Amino acid sequence: MSNPFFKNHGPKKISELIKFLDLNTNNQFEDKEIKDIKDLTSSTQNDITFFHSKKYKDIANKTKASFCLTSQGLKNELPKSCLPIVVDNVLVATSKITSLFYPEAINDHFDQTVTIINETEFKKKVTFGKNVLIGKNVSIGINCRIGHNTIIEKNVFIGDNCSIGSNNIIRNTLIKNNVSILDNCVIGKHGFGFFPINNRNLRYPHIGIVLVEDNCEIGCGATIDRGSMSNTIIGKNVYLDNQIHIAHNVKIGDNSIIAGQVGIAGSSIIGSNVKIGGQAGISGHLKIGNNVEIGGGSGVIKDIPDNTKVMGYPAKNIREFLKDNR
Amino acid sequence: MSNPFFKNHGPKKISELIKFLDLNTNNQFEDKEIKDIKDLTSSTQNDITFFHSKKYKDIANKTKASFCLTSQGLKNELPKSCLPIVVDNVLVATSKITSLFYPEAINDHFDQTVTIINETEFKKKVTFGKNVLIGKNVSIGINCRIGHNTIIEKNVFIGDNCSIGSNNIIRNTLIKNNVSILDNCVIGKHGFGFFPINNRNLRYPHIGIVLVEDNCEIGCGATIDRGSMSNTIIGKNVYLDNQIHIAHNVKIGDNSIIAGQVGIAGSSIIGSNVKIGGQAGISGHLKIGNNVEIGGGSGVIKDIPDNTKVMGYPAKNIREFLKDNR
Amino acid sequence: MSNPFFKNHGPKKISELIKFLDLNTNNQFEDKEIKDIKDLTSSTQNDITFFHSKKYKDIANKTKASFCLTSQGLKNELPKSCLPIVVDNVLVATSKITSLFYPEAINDHFDQTVTIINETEFKKKVTFGKNVLIGKNVSIGINCRIGHNTIIEKNVFIGDNCSIGSNNIIRNTLIKNNVSILDNCVIGKHGFGFFPINNRNLRYPHIGIVLVEDNCEIGCGATIDRGSMSNTIIGKNVYLDNQIHIAHNVKIGDNSIIAGQVGIAGSSIIGSNVKIGGQAGISGHLKIGNNVEIGGGSGVIKDIPDNTKVMGYPAKNIREFLKDNR
Repeated sequence: MSNPFFKNHGPKKISELIKFLDLNTNNQFEDKEIKDIKDLTSSTQNDITFFHSKKYKDIANKTKASFCLTSQGLKNELPKSCLPIVVDNVLVATSKITSLFYPEAINDHFDQTVTIINETEFKKKVTFGKNVLIGKNVSIGINCRIGHNTIIEKNVFIGDNCSIGSNNIIRNTLIKNNVSILDNCVIGKHGFGFFPINNRNLRYPHIGIVLVEDNCEIGCGATIDRGSMSNTIIGKNVYLDNQIHIAHNVKIGDNSIIAGQVGIAGSSIIGSNVKIGGQAGISGHLKIGNNVEIGGGSGVIKDIPDNTKVMGYPAKNIREFLKDNR
Repeated sequence: MSNPFFKNHGPKKISELIKFLDLNTNNQFEDKEIKDIKDLTSSTQNDITFFHSKKYKDIANKTKASFCLTSQGLKNELPKSCLPIVVDNVLVATSKITSLFYPEAINDHFDQTVTIINETEFKKKVTFGKNVLIGKNVSIGINCRIGHNTIIEKNVFIGDNCSIGSNNIIRNTLIKNNVSILDNCVIGKHGFGFFPINNRNLRYPHIGIVLVEDNCEIGCGATIDRGSMSNTIIGKNVYLDNQIHIAHNVKIGDNSIIAGQVGIAGSSIIGSNVKIGGQAGISGHLKIGNNVEIGGGSGVIKDIPDNTKVMGYPAKNIREFLKDNR
Repeated sequence: MSNPFFKNHGPKKISELIKFLDLNTNNQFEDKEIKDIKDLTSSTQNDITFFHSKKYKDIANKTKASFCLTSQGLKNELPKSCLPIVVDNVLVATSKITSLFYPEAINDHFDQTVTIINETEFKKKVTFGKNVLIGKNVSIGINCRIGHNTIIEKNVFIGDNCSIGSNNIIRNTLIKNNVSILDNCVIGKHGFGFFPINNRNLRYPHIGIVLVEDNCEIGCGATIDRGSMSNTIIGKNVYLDNQIHIAHNVKIGDNSIIAGQVGIAGSSIIGSNVKIGGQAGISGHLKIGNNVEIGGGSGVIKDIPDNTKVMGYPAKNIREFLKDNR
């Protein structure tokens, strides 16, 4: 994944990684420099990767990574060029190593880098309200408006002709052209992703961004979380009504229309031209096809094929729903 | 409809309207001045009206308007005094002409007219917090409070003894007496009303207002959209809990009580003394009678008669719901 | 209940209380001083108490209070040491007397006591953003951050290592250590508690607080209301996702995880290690056991025993739910 916003603090020596994980290993390998942590497929020989489930066996044995966080039961699936680092919990170890490379991607403290807009280069270029704050690594196109009390935190690129309302907080977000964001939104914070541990949960880093494509409208009170290892994407000409929650890694196809108070859980993929009625909820890790219509109040807990109308909780074909509820 | 807040930019010559719609017409009529766009019933001979569905046939043939946006199939239903202007999509054309008369009613950019309250006439009259902003065409009664960071944008009339909390954004809204608005609300923005068009939807104007009657309480995080062609109305002594969404044109009767996270879709009419439980949703264009009780979590998808208790999704008589779910 | 935040305006003479209630009584008792209003069990001989339902008969006849607001039908259940004050509506009278002792606990007007943080003792101790406001009776531990535009209103104690984001409003709240609160939250306002009265409802006082234990995370846009007569409690290491509503008097056990847009109605008790899926709703006055899992979108309307997985509306055992919906 391209990563425009989070600084990679690598390279790190492999000995440093092993020490950070508190592992007892027989150091039988060269203390190589590791540039990044990547998934099995995109890793190169300068990277460390991770392998936590049998279902990735076929891509694991082709990985080009030199090291791999994995379990006792899976380590023999790796190619000889890739040295296994056996840990108790692969995902926790992956999270820890990712935080070592990307320490800024774990905690979303408020952004201290901001300056009042009057003291920035944007003073002349942007139409702005009172008390607007701008962070580091921000760019804004022509003919944009930013409303009162809005905080454009670090790592935000805004295209041309965008209208951003008041009281918004935006970070780690790429906004294309002609986008309208109303008021009271929080966009680009980390998602609800962590390892549950009694007494103190462990947050994992979110190194993805939020991408808002051309001609979108985002209603009041939206929360749109950035991705963890991939991006959260709002497609072209998508319209979101008020009080919508979009979790991390969600992708919404072009021209979709989503009514008020809808929630979409993490990593679900919504097709193009999808219409979702008010208060509907979509569970995580689902695939909703193109041209799907989901009735208001529905609870979707499985994939929906293209060109289908569904309603109910759990959501089913709308004819069936109406027949069952005559 | 009375329209206290949106300036009518008319009159416009009929030739200008036709040109704006990009129509090829044989200009066989006098180039008359048109003052406003109104519905079939309230139009006078100085107005243009619109007629898009057979079900309005009976009122169409009595309209007093001189011109009417309509379709090939409907044009012969109009009286001789009303000249048909035939368009492909009557509602889109209506929307375009409405925007010509009321250009400020389409896009809800942040309000640039605001001033910090210390520099206004309200400095002495109102008890106010830090960073309070006041727009044009605002009036505020006696004994009112406005909390920190609240933005009273343009076109807001507030009565006496009102307590408005912090971080609110209000525009195009008429608030009567003894009203309490807690924090983080957005009131009076345009509704989720537009024509879906691939690649770029077309917003239609919202020339209605939000009317909040005496003795209401509005909880934290509410979003209440103003009406499109009529008003959104919160009746007397209505209490709204936190995180409620009220869409455009909704009307809520007196003494109703609505619990947290309820959503009411566009144009639904709620009676008086109605109680709605938490997270319930009401579909659009419904009529909920007086003294109705709607259980928490319900999804209401059809009209509910007076004095009825309903629950479920879809909502049904509560006895039936409880029997079915023993 | 210990009450760190609301000042008791007692003692009050019993004659004053009776006059305030507009009662015609034959003043046959001594005009004693009353220190506080408390429940039947915790009252001492200096207090007034209330007794409104037969089910409290057994504790009523042991109360140590000298006076008791009650009804004609219940007054004979009291011990001789406790003089009954008979009223038409016991709860309304209780509410009125409570407001006499705790007048600040009824209306939650914005806090006028706040000062910009740069002018307070916290200037050196806290890492803070622009436009941060601090009210009276606030304490903040070491190593804390408070984001832009956040308003720490009166009566807030914050422990060590807390990260509070931007645009939050907090009052009457006790926050322990290592707590993270993201953006746009409103914490500690009064709950949705009042007596419905035609034309003008009567709010009752909320003299409880919100208690947020160690290691919690509270997502964006949360609303957490303070308790009325007891406290609202968020247990240790509880994680709340975005747009969650927690009503007054709710208690959530340690290590629970609650996904986006969940709503928990007043006075419900949630156990430890509970997982609640997105958009689920819990009715009021319920008891949810430990280690319970509630599926996304569920509507819980009865108690759930320990170690149970439920789903549906109304929520039932998840196996039954899945079987019924195959």
